Amino acid sequence: MTGDDDVAAVLDAATAAAPFLAALPPDRRGRGLLELASALEDAAGELTEAAVADTGLDAERLRGEITRTCTQLHLFADVLAGDDWLGLRVDEAQPGPPRLPSTVRFRMPMGPALVYEASNFPFAFGVLGTDTAAALAAGCPVVVKTHPGHLATSARTLEIASEILGRLEWPDGALGALHTEDGAVAAMADTRVRVATFTGSLAAGRALFDIAALRADPLPFYAEMGSVNPVFVLPEAARTRGREIAEGLAGSFGPSGGQLCTKPGLVFVPRDSALEAAIADAVRDVPAARLLTERISTMYRATRTALISLDSTEVLATGRRGGAGEVEATALAVDLHALDAPGSPYLEECFGPLVVVVRYDDVAELSAAAARIPGSLTASVHAADGEESGGDLVRLLADRVGRLVWNGWPTGLRVGQATHHGGPYPATSSAQFTSVGAPAIDRFLRPVAYQGVPDEALPGHVRAALVRLRG
Amino acid sequence: MTGDDDVAAVLDAATAAAPFLAALPPDRRGRGLLELASALEDAAGELTEAAVADTGLDAERLRGEITRTCTQLHLFADVLAGDDWLGLRVDEAQPGPPRLPSTVRFRMPMGPALVYEASNFPFAFGVLGTDTAAALAAGCPVVVKTHPGHLATSARTLEIASEILGRLEWPDGALGALHTEDGAVAAMADTRVRVATFTGSLAAGRALFDIAALRADPLPFYAEMGSVNPVFVLPEAARTRGREIAEGLAGSFGPSGGQLCTKPGLVFVPRDSALEAAIADAVRDVPAARLLTERISTMYRATRTALISLDSTEVLATGRRGGAGEVEATALAVDLHALDAPGSPYLEECFGPLVVVVRYDDVAELSAAAARIPGSLTASVHAADGEESGGDLVRLLADRVGRLVWNGWPTGLRVGQATHHGGPYPATSSAQFTSVGAPAIDRFLRPVAYQGVPDEALPGHVRAALVRLRG
Repeated sequence: MTGDDDVAAVLDAATAAAPFLAALPPDRRGRGLLELASALEDAAGELTEAAVADTGLDAERLRGEITRTCTQLHLFADVLAGDDWLGLRVDEAQPGPPRLPSTVRFRMPMGPALVYEASNFPFAFGVLGTDTAAALAAGCPVVVKTHPGHLATSARTLEIASEILGRLEWPDGALGALHTEDGAVAAMADTRVRVATFTGSLAAGRALFDIAALRADPLPFYAEMGSVNPVFVLPEAARTRGREIAEGLAGSFGPSGGQLCTKPGLVFVPRDSALEAAIADAVRDVPAARLLTERISTMYRATRTALISLDSTEVLATGRRGGAGEVEATALAVDLHALDAPGSPYLEECFGPLVVVVRYDDVAELSAAAARIPGSLTASVHAADGEESGGDLVRLLADRVGRLVWNGWPTGLRVGQATHHGGPYPATSSAQFTSVGAPAIDRFLRPVAYQGVPDEALPGHVRAALVRLRG
Repeated sequence: MTGDDDVAAVLDAATAAAPFLAALPPDRRGRGLLELASALEDAAGELTEAAVADTGLDAERLRGEITRTCTQLHLFADVLAGDDWLGLRVDEAQPGPPRLPSTVRFRMPMGPALVYEASNFPFAFGVLGTDTAAALAAGCPVVVKTHPGHLATSARTLEIASEILGRLEWPDGALGALHTEDGAVAAMADTRVRVATFTGSLAAGRALFDIAALRADPLPFYAEMGSVNPVFVLPEAARTRGREIAEGLAGSFGPSGGQLCTKPGLVFVPRDSALEAAIADAVRDVPAARLLTERISTMYRATRTALISLDSTEVLATGRRGGAGEVEATALAVDLHALDAPGSPYLEECFGPLVVVVRYDDVAELSAAAARIPGSLTASVHAADGEESGGDLVRLLADRVGRLVWNGWPTGLRVGQATHHGGPYPATSSAQFTSVGAPAIDRFLRPVAYQGVPDEALPGHVRAALVRLRG
């Protein structure tokens, strides 16, 4: 027992549930996800209220987030209705010589998953969020580490989920929870946990990554962490669409108190363009916000103060004054060469409603700037027709990020079959995986090959998929 | 400069070659692989001779290994001729509301790869082995760390490859080499290296894994390490096919001095069955072998002596006496309960021609034994018709290994589309990946999503695949 968590009991239950979930036919796992989505939708009013109280986020935004969370659960049910997730490949037997036995390769669940809730999405990255949905879809029991920033919301979501899973006669250990930091860290170090996911700060994510890597049996661990999400506005786009771009920027970095992993943190604009004044205007209209937790608020104020205190920083504009406990949106401006210094503070994520406008003189400077961007979830390019027609900047940025946005904004991630919400370190701990979208299930599956095994010894759903594959 | 390696120059060259290889159309990368295979085949006589001198392995086996290496190069050229490797997924634009931009997701090369040669396969895991072939196929420049056990073979293979790549006008950095331990470790710690692979001992693999994980930007690192590859012979199979199984075992653990990652190291047999005597007979015929390196030879003798010195060990049989510098094949026998002790030495890989016969009384005991097997590349089950019809043992073993072999032997891996040569730790450092077969390319690719990007800004081969996908 660590603090208030009975880690051993929670992990024993998850371990006991693993064979059940692995053997449960995929369509029944899918039906479970749909039932969870229905229950979430039914309780949306009550849950939104709880989350508003917990987080200070806007009710409409939270209600929308519940819908997104249901979309995610539906998405993984859809994934299970097809065969792609199984990764089935066959090398048929050859009579020879040389006689070769068949190889049937498919993917199986990795076992109990530890899933850290994120602070900033109490539903979409919460108890029934993308990580839980993907893990259950894969057939892995889930142990959720609840986030202290929205405990009431998590507790109620857990109750709702437990009721549904109980009704479906899934074992208790299919979805468990830990509530303390110490309990979760003990679980990270426990060999019963076979895979873990995290969404949060670089400092916390890296600490957990190190625990995972240094285990006697290293733990597959998928962390989504800090991201500066640069935006490059090319000269002609700045000239012709300045007002629209300025408003788009304010609408992307301002809402939700700027507490989104995809918040644009750096915006490259041509020096002396009208865009800069337009950005200042738009930022002045951004409402103040109460941030998610006291800790996030303190960190935001400290980072903002530190950046403003630098000689290279100019305060371009601040948003509306807030009440007690609220913070103001802030746009800073710097020259491009301010990013040159090794470990430049402008290249670190500031979690909250702050954006740094970076002035450049010539598009030719942007290649070097792009190469200096730390691994990010996204990069965006605003270009007029004919600008960036060679695609050089896009190619350079593709090497640094997981998603490239063209004439759009990185927030408002589209959840689908082709989603990639990932990117090179420090955006995530593994650039090969995504935490959102259909391929998020990949994190919880591993291949196994059956060589010369008679069909009747294959799992039933593999046998069925094999019949479909062989046509 | 570290020792004899100019690490900085080698990594600069690889870095410079990365954009060229990434932009090279996949069919031209494929043609490069085919040219390398032809050159290898043309030089097979000379290379076999060099490898016999370097390793002491049998000429016929080495000649066969060159053929396998060419098969691997051809396999990845085939992979590039299709679209699967690209992992292309599309969420088409929606006019809305809400208007949604398109997302095009595909996989791109991760960048310069450091590839450690293995001691035991101077060709198939050598300069132009499976790791190099997969990395070049993905579009990653390769820096090979040559193995001290076959330096002449590696040097000649590098010369042959350089000539071909020069003729194809690939940049020098497309395939480079480091020859010292210190040089390779410096490269592991260098951010210019974006992915690394290793095949060898658990001790060395784990040390490199820790270096990779503790980098400021953790390095994706794929190590294939120790594996005991258990074989379970069920009672009826032992009774009816004892002679055949005994000969199969000797033919699997004996050749190549037992220095194969898939060598069966543990064989579970029913107590008092005739199989045991048959195994002893078969082992007595196994020729002595010169092991690959002095170090491997020393380790083998030490491990063998340590195991024999245990009270629980019985020496079942030894193979033919060898000359100076050669070692004898060895079959030991123990009771099942000898595996119960925590950290039982019988559960660790002994690299060389040694097998441990484990006597069981009842098939019911095998479930607990299966659960205790360390993560392995393979497990094999020998069963007569009707035995293991419930598939319980197979299911338990699937949780511990990467490949399940039915009435066959784990050595002689089939290289194909469905190959999985991987497994839970300590068999590999990441159970989700394979080092052999078509999916081995996965280790060198990462996804990127292009959102709302006009088709003309997509790489040409992605544009072409998109046309095919949309039909």
